[in-house]
Amino acid sequence: MPLTITSLFGIPLIQPGDNLVDLIRTALARTGITLQDGDILVLAQKIVSKAEGRLVNLAGVKPSERAAALGAQIDKDTRLVELVLQESREVLRTRPGTVIVEHRLGFVCANAGIDHSNVAGSGNEDEEWVLLLPEDPDGSAERIRRGLEGACGVRLGVMIIDSHGRAWRQGTVGMAIGFSGMPGLVDLRGTPDLFEYTLRITQVGAADELAAAASLLMGQAAEGTPVVHVRGFPYPLREGSFMELLRPREQDLFR
Amino acid sequence: MPLTITSLFGIPLIQPGDNLVDLIRTALARTGITLQDGDILVLAQKIVSKAEGRLVNLAGVKPSERAAALGAQIDKDTRLVELVLQESREVLRTRPGTVIVEHRLGFVCANAGIDHSNVAGSGNEDEEWVLLLPEDPDGSAERIRRGLEGACGVRLGVMIIDSHGRAWRQGTVGMAIGFSGMPGLVDLRGTPDLFEYTLRITQVGAADELAAAASLLMGQAAEGTPVVHVRGFPYPLREGSFMELLRPREQDLFR
Repeated sequence: MPLTITSLFGIPLIQPGDNLVDLIRTALARTGITLQDGDILVLAQKIVSKAEGRLVNLAGVKPSERAAALGAQIDKDTRLVELVLQESREVLRTRPGTVIVEHRLGFVCANAGIDHSNVAGSGNEDEEWVLLLPEDPDGSAERIRRGLEGACGVRLGVMIIDSHGRAWRQGTVGMAIGFSGMPGLVDLRGTPDLFEYTLRITQVGAADELAAAASLLMGQAAEGTPVVHVRGFPYPLREGSFMELLRPREQDLFR
Repeated sequence: MPLTITSLFGIPLIQPGDNLVDLIRTALARTGITLQDGDILVLAQKIVSKAEGRLVNLAGVKPSERAAALGAQIDKDTRLVELVLQESREVLRTRPGTVIVEHRLGFVCANAGIDHSNVAGSGNEDEEWVLLLPEDPDGSAERIRRGLEGACGVRLGVMIIDSHGRAWRQGTVGMAIGFSGMPGLVDLRGTPDLFEYTLRITQVGAADELAAAASLLMGQAAEGTPVVHVRGFPYPLREGSFMELLRPREQDLFR
């Protein structure tokens, strides 16, 4: 069975309080997709964060001493640095304009995933608004999944993704920041390979592989489509959490 | 247009010297796919390496002093360590059983991508054979692309992928190690977003996103399918090289 990933038509600009389940159902109908058991819906972080009201007006943020010092050091808005620090457990590296942190959710990313682009404000204050990641992306995915499953009577997975940079390689790629009803890791260890060897390094980051695939279709600019539908995910659905994908700090050679 | 990724049926076990272009054309016909302009074929590294005869019998490898010392330190076959060192520019980290290196091709990976599984030998010597990465994966992709384009009269991309581990996150994901006729990075910097901001961090690792997507369908065990067909890649094809994806060492905070 092929893996088919389809952008949904007609997801409007999201406002705080919007009901994503209803919007996704409408967009699925417009796109001509009837959900089936085993389908997965992948959402860009931005629309989940906006629906959940995670917009912050920088004008109301007062930088701590630590944020002021770090902001001066790396030439970055100290109010934004304050929010980055509030959203993070630990600063791993800094360079001009960028702070690489362990986010409070546990993953490593730049600037705590706080986004300046695609964020609307009101009139002249546009540039003051930034968008934090969802409070609890696994929980957000779970709620959306339950809403869609209840409405459509099928067994689904739902995933929320963001575009992250990486060590060693250029270019952002889509990565899972939360999901429900699907595996994060698929463990093939112990599976005999074609020559009856037992496979060794075969924990597959299946959710991240799908996040990257979905990200390809989302784009990031004016043409962006923030929800995509996936059919043909090749692994069985099960309960899962993005925390499966986090490498324990003590096993990480690159902190 | 949806992104559709399809496993090809009927790729046999590959032997040194096999003509991958012919095998892929046969498999495409069996799968019922007629190539179109803009399609991409993604190949697992293993079949390219095998076709190119990159098998090495460990019984014939003599470890250097350096390999012997490192192998003893991390409890790993010193002959394999010798090959890892030969295939690498630099050792970045070590832990029991694993050497994280900068491969001679420029990317960072574990054990120089040398694979013990899915490698056939003869009789009792099975376990002695290992498989190195292709000499020049961009060049391999280029040759396969030209062969397919010539035979089929269409404009294609061809990519070779491997499963790599990552800093910070668990699970391997498919990554590009070589390609031809397609972009590695897509630069959206300067594109206005929905609110007329200019996007900031928007170099997308498009080839790696597609590699991850293709890897989902390849599996790694007995059911593996080493070639997948992609239709609907959302960015224009152009000439490209996997070297676009390599972060220059001096810009890398995680070496």
